[in-house]
Parts: sequence; structure tokens; C-alpha cells
Amino acid sequence: MIDICLLGCGGSMPVPGRSLTSLLISFNGRKILIDCGEGTQVSMKILGKGFKKIDTICLTHYHADHVLGLPGLLLTIANSGRCEPLNIIGPKGLAKIIKGLLVVAPNLPYDLKLIEVEEENFKIKYGDIIINTTYEEHTVPCLGYSLKAVRKRAFDISKAKRNKVPQNIWSKLQSGEAEEIDGMCFTPEMVLGDKRNGIKISYVTDTRPTGKLVDFIKGSDLFICEGMYGAEEELEKAVRNKHMIFKEAAELANSGKVKELWLTHFSPSLTDPHAYIKNAEDIFNNVKIGEDRLCKSINFERNYN
Amino acid sequence: MIDICLLGCGGSMPVPGRSLTSLLISFNGRKILIDCGEGTQVSMKILGKGFKKIDTICLTHYHADHVLGLPGLLLTIANSGRCEPLNIIGPKGLAKIIKGLLVVAPNLPYDLKLIEVEEENFKIKYGDIIINTTYEEHTVPCLGYSLKAVRKRAFDISKAKRNKVPQNIWSKLQSGEAEEIDGMCFTPEMVLGDKRNGIKISYVTDTRPTGKLVDFIKGSDLFICEGMYGAEEELEKAVRNKHMIFKEAAELANSGKVKELWLTHFSPSLTDPHAYIKNAEDIFNNVKIGEDRLCKSINFERNYN
Repeated sequence: MIDICLLGCGGSMPVPGRSLTSLLISFNGRKILIDCGEGTQVSMKILGKGFKKIDTICLTHYHADHVLGLPGLLLTIANSGRCEPLNIIGPKGLAKIIKGLLVVAPNLPYDLKLIEVEEENFKIKYGDIIINTTYEEHTVPCLGYSLKAVRKRAFDISKAKRNKVPQNIWSKLQSGEAEEIDGMCFTPEMVLGDKRNGIKISYVTDTRPTGKLVDFIKGSDLFICEGMYGAEEELEKAVRNKHMIFKEAAELANSGKVKELWLTHFSPSLTDPHAYIKNAEDIFNNVKIGEDRLCKSINFERNYN
Repeated sequence: MIDICLLGCGGSMPVPGRSLTSLLISFNGRKILIDCGEGTQVSMKILGKGFKKIDTICLTHYHADHVLGLPGLLLTIANSGRCEPLNIIGPKGLAKIIKGLLVVAPNLPYDLKLIEVEEENFKIKYGDIIINTTYEEHTVPCLGYSLKAVRKRAFDISKAKRNKVPQNIWSKLQSGEAEEIDGMCFTPEMVLGDKRNGIKISYVTDTRPTGKLVDFIKGSDLFICEGMYGAEEELEKAVRNKHMIFKEAAELANSGKVKELWLTHFSPSLTDPHAYIKNAEDIFNNVKIGEDRLCKSINFERNYN
């Protein structure tokens, strides 16, 4: 099971009741954060989420509404007792930004491992989470993220028996290692069931919709996408400011055949995003208007083979 | 009249319902901010306060809880249309801190005038506000602030007539200029009433109580002081962390003969500061427990002479 919490759904400037952009993903006792606007910490505290297990922070870009909660959060993670290194991933310029912001948090008790993404389609695996990025189309270099929680293949007892695998090496094979006994090679393939679907979460904000984003988000269980503006009349403004209207986010969701769409990163001028939900629902039928602390748990698909 | 609004009453870390340290002072159409923790902007928006007229920001020191709202606020001030320069006052190290934080706000449409306070008892006059600072006793260089709203002397008609001042030069003399007519010198003193009391606001946070603070806050109409801890049993912790307990803040208020004390900058562990108010009231009789958006207007004393 993977837990997803939208910590802040605001874009540009904080407004009462709407923290700035941040998403928390919890999986197998670890926490990954995407963006860290002002208000991130407060939202986590309201949800009763601890800070110590945050091991990776993914930044889409360095506009203030996406990063200004970071120095305070890093200090709070320090106060929570973390000593293990923490990864920060971001587009070009990451080292300079972190150096600047850490002027008020100069003595963290853990190391920061900075991963400055230079190339298109960057991919990194942290344990059983695979993080993918793609460069988007914004006014500054900006990354979209997708996270895939990998599901291990189940142990298939009948297959192991059918292949006459000695029971004392079952667990070794299950863990991925092969074993040779009396000249006979036993492989993991001989005890493992079919490949199983993982869970894919995509996060796309501060961009115009592009063709490559369709591939990038393809088949997501949850697609979290900016909807800076609700009304179709604001398309021109969206094009100018390199953002999206609700309709465009829904078109992406539809083309990418995702299962569910959450709209987020609302302009401060969009005081009632619910008033425009139909603009998205006309195109894609499983849309939620994001709000601070909108949460969801997604289970792996049941799969008995 | 001067308006004072405590925008955030929290210390160390933001907690739900308690923004980090910030105080807004409005006088004659201008706004001065002391400290700018996370949540400052949201508190101002809840109060319906505009951003454009903030012309001076006073920073006590550079711990994250006092400054991390600053880059976002400067951007919001920019969005409000401000083009005039903005003053930022702070202790040693100001330029380095601002340079670091502005990594996410590199293109402000107005100039920042940085005033890095090197000396003890620094004083600066902006129009009809005089700002004083004193170095406090904290773990890093930290300034206390007092602001005095100056009240002009009233025009005294009977005195002007008594001194036979020609009516056509009354306004010139009232504005502070002298005039010579037919060899006779007319001075402002000949038309102005007695000196009148201004309004004094003092702001002391992140420090141990010291003797010189008593003089610094002397006679304040409102003394806003940290009360990091409520219970007397926390004195040792307060000494160690260079903070104060409620009782010490009240002793300062009492010795400084201030009119009113607001306690603020509460530790996240101090979930119910009201439970300890008696520790302050036993020593000083006009205490308020600070809370986000506690506001007060202070009028100049009536004075008819």
C-alpha cells in the first residue's frame, strides 16, 4: 500500500486555507516529498506525520512557491533526530539554490545528497521506489516526476515443487539469488510467480501540456496535475504563463489513460476551483479538486497467479 | 493612532494555528514589519492588510523561525506593485543572509536598502518613526527593537496671537521654518504648543533578560516580549537556550514601567500558554498572552496645551 497526501494545493502565493505546493508519498516506512512550499510542515503536523523518515525530496523547480518551506523543513527533520543522509533531486541549478537557502540552516546533522538532473528521462531507484523525471515546458527549467512502487513477485509453491527445487533453498531463490547443487542450477525463475503491477503516481505542475507528458504519465494510478486556472477563457493567460487550464489537465489525463486525476496548484485568483470541475469532467470522468491534506491510499492489485 | 498586529506568535517551528514570529506596525499609511517567519503573508491576508506600503522590515536575527517568510513576502510586495525602495534592518551578517534567501527571488522590481547594524544603540528616523535597536543576549547576534511614533507639536493660536505673529506666516512657522519680516525674526517656537508624548512600542525576543533591556524598553506603551516557556521549572532550559520564562518577561515589563505586556514566541512544547499567565500576572498586572493576529490600536494621549 502507498499513501499519498497533497500537503498544499496553492500556486504562486500562500492564501488563507491553502498552503503552497507539496505532496507527500509514504511507502514501506519511508517518505518522499515532492516540492516543499510554505506551509508544508504545518500540513504534515495537522496530519500527524513524522519527519524523520523523509529520505528524498524531489523539487520540480525553484520558484518560491515550490521551495520556501524547505529550509524550515530540513531543520525540523534535524530536530526529529535524523542522522542518515537525505536525497534532494531537482533540475539544473540545485546546488546553487540549496546553498542559498541553507544560509539559515547551516549546521544540519545529516548529509544532503544533491542529485541535479541534467538529462531527459532521468531515472533513479531507491529501494523499491523508482523515480522518473522529464523536463517540462515552463518559464524556467522544471521537472515532472513519476514514482513507481515496485511489487516483488510472489513465491509460487506449486511452481517450486513442480521444478523440484529443494525446500532449503526456497528463500534464497525467492530473494533473487541462484544456487547450484550437484551440477544442477536452480534459478529464481523456478520459484517466482508472474510479474505483478506496481503502483504509479505522476506529478506534473508548472508546465504547458506536451505530447511527451502523455507518455510520461501513461497508466498512472494517480495523476496529480496543475490546474492553475479553471475557466476556458483563461487559456491565453495559461499559455502566456506556461500553465494549464482544467480542461488541458483533463485532456492529459485522458490521453495518458490514468485512473484518477487530482487537480492542484491553483492560482490565488481561483477562489472556488469546484465551480469549474465540469470543465475537466467533460473530458475525464475521475477528477478530484485538490485541497490541503487530500489523502488517498492505493493498494497493489490483487493477483493470485 | 498606531496599529499593532502580532502576525505570528510561534517560536522555533510552525505548529498548526500558530505562525512564526512577526509583528506589523502601521502608522500614517506606512507599514513596518519586525521579523518575518513562515506564515507572515497568510496572517496579513487574513487581516486584509495590503503589502505595498511595507517600507521597512526589521530583523532581530537570522534563525529560520524569524526570516523564512521573507523571500515570499518580498515577492508578494513586488506583485502588489511596489517600486519604491524597501529598507531591511538587521544585525551583523544581513547582506549574506539576504543574498542567500534571494536565490529564489532574484529579480525584485524595487531596491533593497540594507542597514546592517554594527553598533550598540543604533538609531534611525524614517519620517515620523524613530527606530532604536540594542544588542541582546542570545546564541547568535540578535537585536531588540523599539519604535517611537513622533507626535508633532500642535499649533497654539493664542500663543501665536500673543506673540503678534502675522497670520500669513502661521503655516510656515508651524512646519518648522522661521521667517524674518522687517528685521523681526519669527520662530516656530512662537506658534507651537508644548512637546507631546509619542507612542513607544518595544519588541524583545530571543534573549535572556538583561539590565540594559530595562532602559531600552522604559516607558513603552506596549512591550512585546518573548515568553518561550511558561513554567518556572523551565528556567534552566531558558538560561541554556538564551530565552525567557513568563516570569522574567513580566519582571522586565515591571522594571521598565511599561503600560502593557504581550507575551509571544512560544515554544512548540507550550501548547497552552494561558495556563501559565498567572506566573506573569503575579509580577505585572497588564499582560496579554499573544496569539496570531492579536491587534491593538494606540492613540496619542489627549493633550490640549
